[in-house]
Amino acid sequence: MAVFEPIGHVESGHRDLGRVPSQASESGGRARIVVDGRYADALLGLDRYSHVWVLTWLHDQPAEAPLRLVPRANEATGEVQGVFASRAPARPNPIGLSLVRLLDVDGTVLTVGGVDLLDGTPVLDIKPWFADCDLPASLDGRPRAAP
Amino acid sequence: MAVFEPIGHVESGHRDLGRVPSQASESGGRARIVVDGRYADALLGLDRYSHVWVLTWLHDQPAEAPLRLVPRANEATGEVQGVFASRAPARPNPIGLSLVRLLDVDGTVLTVGGVDLLDGTPVLDIKPWFADCDLPASLDGRPRAAP
Repeated sequence: MAVFEPIGHVESGHRDLGRVPSQASESGGRARIVVDGRYADALLGLDRYSHVWVLTWLHDQPAEAPLRLVPRANEATGEVQGVFASRAPARPNPIGLSLVRLLDVDGTVLTVGGVDLLDGTPVLDIKPWFADCDLPASLDGRPRAAP
Repeated sequence: MAVFEPIGHVESGHRDLGRVPSQASESGGRARIVVDGRYADALLGLDRYSHVWVLTWLHDQPAEAPLRLVPRANEATGEVQGVFASRAPARPNPIGLSLVRLLDVDGTVLTVGGVDLLDGTPVLDIKPWFADCDLPASLDGRPRAAP
């Protein structure tokens, strides 16, 4: 069993699960990532990055996630897919992966753009977006500099 | 506290932490993601995607992660950064985020390319890579189709 303690939480103003955009990029709104004060040192240098990953615990999801579902993108056709072939928030381990624009870092409060997360969502990790490992083209085997 | 039960594990042949490439894209090698049989239904349709995220539990990391470190990319300058401004595996919640090429799906065994993970690493989640939410350019606010 992996046991993780949140490092902060989301302040997004989104309080209604049905009205949250299905992916981060669909929301033009701003939100705040409030990191616990004990992790202040861990944010040094984050402000040099324009885009960061926010990994969250989608804690409001039902305890039993269906293994097959009709993803939002397939609503027109009704085609069923496995949950690992979707980005549905209800999943066996409900970890959210959201790419956000980093607009500001003020102490332990990040202001970000493009957030799809419910207000109060616990944050598990923050990582910079790196072209060297986060772009499919980076995996094509060409020699390149280390990230 | 977020408690997650692994959904599978990595078979990579990498057994020495010091010799694992620092990011997935640096490794040209193949690996297998072995998903537990009870999640077979959750893989339906995954084979249509060329690239998937593998979220892992970096369980071999020390219990206490330093909040500041010199990332590998800064070894020449010795510049210290916060752990959230790095992709270092030793982090407060050691969740690995690896983009991999999906080469084959055979039952519950995925063959993937470009893996940076130790043999036996527990897998927490698998998600398809979507240009609509995983590319920084997707966050610039232009209207576009839903994923």
